[in-house]
Amino acid sequence: MPRFRLDIEYDGSLYAGWQRQADQPSVQQAIEQAIEKFCGEEVSLRGAGRTDAGVHATAQVAHVDLIKAWPDDKVRDAVNAHLQAAGARIAVLKAAAVADGFDARFSATGRHYLYRIVNRRAPAALDKGKVWWVPKRLDAAAMHEAAKVLLGRHDFTTFRSTQCQADSPVRTLDRLDVSRSGDLIEVKASARSFLHNQVRSMVGSLKRVGEGGWTIADLKVALDARDRAACGQVAPPDGLFLVGVDYPEKILGPAGWQRNAE
Amino acid sequence: MPRFRLDIEYDGSLYAGWQRQADQPSVQQAIEQAIEKFCGEEVSLRGAGRTDAGVHATAQVAHVDLIKAWPDDKVRDAVNAHLQAAGARIAVLKAAAVADGFDARFSATGRHYLYRIVNRRAPAALDKGKVWWVPKRLDAAAMHEAAKVLLGRHDFTTFRSTQCQADSPVRTLDRLDVSRSGDLIEVKASARSFLHNQVRSMVGSLKRVGEGGWTIADLKVALDARDRAACGQVAPPDGLFLVGVDYPEKILGPAGWQRNAE
Repeated sequence: MPRFRLDIEYDGSLYAGWQRQADQPSVQQAIEQAIEKFCGEEVSLRGAGRTDAGVHATAQVAHVDLIKAWPDDKVRDAVNAHLQAAGARIAVLKAAAVADGFDARFSATGRHYLYRIVNRRAPAALDKGKVWWVPKRLDAAAMHEAAKVLLGRHDFTTFRSTQCQADSPVRTLDRLDVSRSGDLIEVKASARSFLHNQVRSMVGSLKRVGEGGWTIADLKVALDARDRAACGQVAPPDGLFLVGVDYPEKILGPAGWQRNAE
Repeated sequence: MPRFRLDIEYDGSLYAGWQRQADQPSVQQAIEQAIEKFCGEEVSLRGAGRTDAGVHATAQVAHVDLIKAWPDDKVRDAVNAHLQAAGARIAVLKAAAVADGFDARFSATGRHYLYRIVNRRAPAALDKGKVWWVPKRLDAAAMHEAAKVLLGRHDFTTFRSTQCQADSPVRTLDRLDVSRSGDLIEVKASARSFLHNQVRSMVGSLKRVGEGGWTIADLKVALDARDRAACGQVAPPDGLFLVGVDYPEKILGPAGWQRNAE
């Protein structure tokens, strides 16, 4: 069966998360239903990142096996037409046949997230639901310095949801950059994979540093505690976007594929 | 009575436009009600740009007279609190006492609009309602070239709503730039003032040039026709943002004020 890679954008505020659930709308289910309407097949989609309720994506990646070798653009346009008809806030940016060995989740070698904070006295009006509004002034430079504590290979138990189902709490964080542009603070996080709620937990603790409640040393103590109770506030899902997934070139097949993250 | 200038951001998709209407929610009314809840005064707000239903603002400017000389930040925070409580998608970015001579509408010497087009096969998911989705490939460079035809002082009857109440159809267009960045095409328009639907009418006609349906000469013919029927499609409100209003320095009072547009 031909396997297709789908690159997907969605507004997470309308969904209970990526993953299919019994009684709530999910991104996965909405796309699976659109595919079924398009080609009559009951399919199962596998995504690279199981984003939580309210978390957005500019470049989620998923794969699906279809019976027929449809033209790539036909898959993209037909699935989008059915998503639109269903009122979904989901769009397939690109669809392409890939080698059988490609697995959106297990072949991924890097995941990139962006977290956006609007840091001003006035609430977010235009970007409501797509940023975390923090009215108290944050020191983005201090947050960026503190973020270095978390880089590298660590036991991230402190920054992991108690619901997390991963076997190990050890992850290697490759990037955690904090920068300010006007009222907007952006946190960019990259790793091979993340624990459940890891990015939001790290952002919430960095926010505590930014407002002066924690020093860099306090953040280090929290990390070393390997204790969920040592974590600062977990940042809300609104500001979080999955912005890219990396795959090894050899698995992308003859067509190759551009890396999505900057 | 102390006069306050308010700089305002809003998501226009929830409102029937800036201007107060008998039976539909407007941005003006939502703010007037928030002010009344804050200080008990029934006020009348005057805005610099009477944006249509669905049109957004990152920097609308309005003025209001209050009985008491409240501290600026108190006005901003209190009005925002009441806007938030009412579920409004409106935020007062800044409030400041200004000289009596300041009139948000009549003192304005420049207005700046941004129009955003997402030009790709896939519909807009994350930015739905905040962009115009045009799936057919547009030549942004050709649109930019054509835009020059509209610069300067002209009778803009072709690009003016039949509902427009302005005395004269003559306006001076100072800027009309079209640029592409990836899938996003931005049109930036500046003038002392615009006619009703002028920006959306110009963008709709430029889109016709971008898709190859019109040449630059066709656009010139349309302008010279001074006939509403000669206009191309009127672009939808979704992509339009009021992004700045200019005032002469001498009228801004001792505090001065930064120009909002880039």
